[in-house]
Amino acid sequence: MDYILGVDGGGSSCRAAIATADGRLLGRGKAGSANIYSDPTQSLSSILHAAKEACKDAGLTEEALQQTFAVLGLAGANAHNDPIGLAENLPFAAVQVVSDSLIALEGAHGSDDGVIGILGTGSNFMARKGEKHYYLGGWGFHCGDQGSGAKMGERALEEALLAHDGLRSLCPLTEHILRQFDDDPRKLSEFARTAKPKDFGEFMPIILIYAKQQSRLALDIVEEGTTYVASALRLLSDDGKLPIALLGGLSHAYDAFLPPDLKQFFVPAKNDALRGALAMAERENALNT
Amino acid sequence: MDYILGVDGGGSSCRAAIATADGRLLGRGKAGSANIYSDPTQSLSSILHAAKEACKDAGLTEEALQQTFAVLGLAGANAHNDPIGLAENLPFAAVQVVSDSLIALEGAHGSDDGVIGILGTGSNFMARKGEKHYYLGGWGFHCGDQGSGAKMGERALEEALLAHDGLRSLCPLTEHILRQFDDDPRKLSEFARTAKPKDFGEFMPIILIYAKQQSRLALDIVEEGTTYVASALRLLSDDGKLPIALLGGLSHAYDAFLPPDLKQFFVPAKNDALRGALAMAERENALNT
Repeated sequence: MDYILGVDGGGSSCRAAIATADGRLLGRGKAGSANIYSDPTQSLSSILHAAKEACKDAGLTEEALQQTFAVLGLAGANAHNDPIGLAENLPFAAVQVVSDSLIALEGAHGSDDGVIGILGTGSNFMARKGEKHYYLGGWGFHCGDQGSGAKMGERALEEALLAHDGLRSLCPLTEHILRQFDDDPRKLSEFARTAKPKDFGEFMPIILIYAKQQSRLALDIVEEGTTYVASALRLLSDDGKLPIALLGGLSHAYDAFLPPDLKQFFVPAKNDALRGALAMAERENALNT
Repeated sequence: MDYILGVDGGGSSCRAAIATADGRLLGRGKAGSANIYSDPTQSLSSILHAAKEACKDAGLTEEALQQTFAVLGLAGANAHNDPIGLAENLPFAAVQVVSDSLIALEGAHGSDDGVIGILGTGSNFMARKGEKHYYLGGWGFHCGDQGSGAKMGERALEEALLAHDGLRSLCPLTEHILRQFDDDPRKLSEFARTAKPKDFGEFMPIILIYAKQQSRLALDIVEEGTTYVASALRLLSDDGKLPIALLGGLSHAYDAFLPPDLKQFFVPAKNDALRGALAMAERENALNT
């Protein structure tokens, strides 16, 4: 193929980059969420939109996509490999669908061994040890994603309703949340009925503000998430034998809460996930040429 | 109106009964789930189906529904009063939409003061003290319904994935659940992605079996639910000053787990929720004639 395209599709947004076959970056694009676990249809349209934007940014026509080898790194892809036939519904000449964790690992550690924790709307962990890849978590919002913004946000809303019902004392965090719903629990419940993980995740900044003020419930929620994240990182890194990179919108927040004996193994990511996807696309395209 | 109709619509099924204006039962019908919180459209079609069945059972034509005063007691109705305009989309001459807890309270305690706990796919509590009604819980699957079959089932599936990931020891309950998904966590995750509360609730019998065998995780899940249910009942009954009736598919299971000092205030329900809906319809229809 003449071109390569990398896509980094997460729960909140989807980014694409198009490059020449030898990796010279030509253009970038961005669109809405692309989590094929929680919304496959939206995911398809976000990928297409971001890819077209990248073409436009590169000064290419959309026909270029038909000459493109694409690596799509998508949230939810380790749980559900291409459930809606992305390959058939997208204009690319060839498509490889991988998890967003694999492109993030490639970006963060290059071809070296290492562990990543992706902490944002969802949560997801991965390690490479030699030839082997190990996945942990990333099972999605309903029975997984512990320590994610979505799960912690949902928990805070649940606590707000418990406080409204008189089963908990009101606290600054639950008062704040109830106020956002005009102190009407029916509005909160109606919000929760249709909320996507991303919508629950939007309560995370408030939780962090109250946690920093040492407010008990906010600290409890963050500590519950931290316990899970620390266990996952210890298990995958063999207690720190591999370097660990934290990624995602909550990585800085977790930096403040994770225990120092674990943090000594943290390294900064070499590159971002989008660069990881492009690097994989370049390698795979070269192999197929 | 010539006829009255009562509907008891819950997360798992919907029952209807049609009677003469003076309360003589003519026929009954049944259909699928009618939770207007988790699935408003399904709810509408279940109500219609159950009502038509009741007509048929009574030897009436469907035209009778146009001469009918209906009281619809629906799961989720205290959180969301008729969000899809049920009244306009159903053939009844007049419709009153109330919560499933109100018809259950009416059935269980008649016009007396009392507390009910409805424990099934969802969870929901209500009390009548004189002229006043008090609601607790019933906020729906996402940020409420603690102690329900759906929430405890979801928790068990979450624990199964944590065990698969190596973050928990496998136990009889999580082994059993993983086996049901061919030991493939992706199948479990895919199930969870689209599962309705009812589908999560179907894991409750297994949880109870292992809890009775004193299996630790199953006991933990049931004890967590029991703590919530006990708190709710104590709060609403002023620590037992009002009689308490437990209703719903999990009421017998909770009988075995709730503390004796609370159980001494338990009374059997006088009638079921469907009879409660009919009694309300009879009264309201008489007032409007």
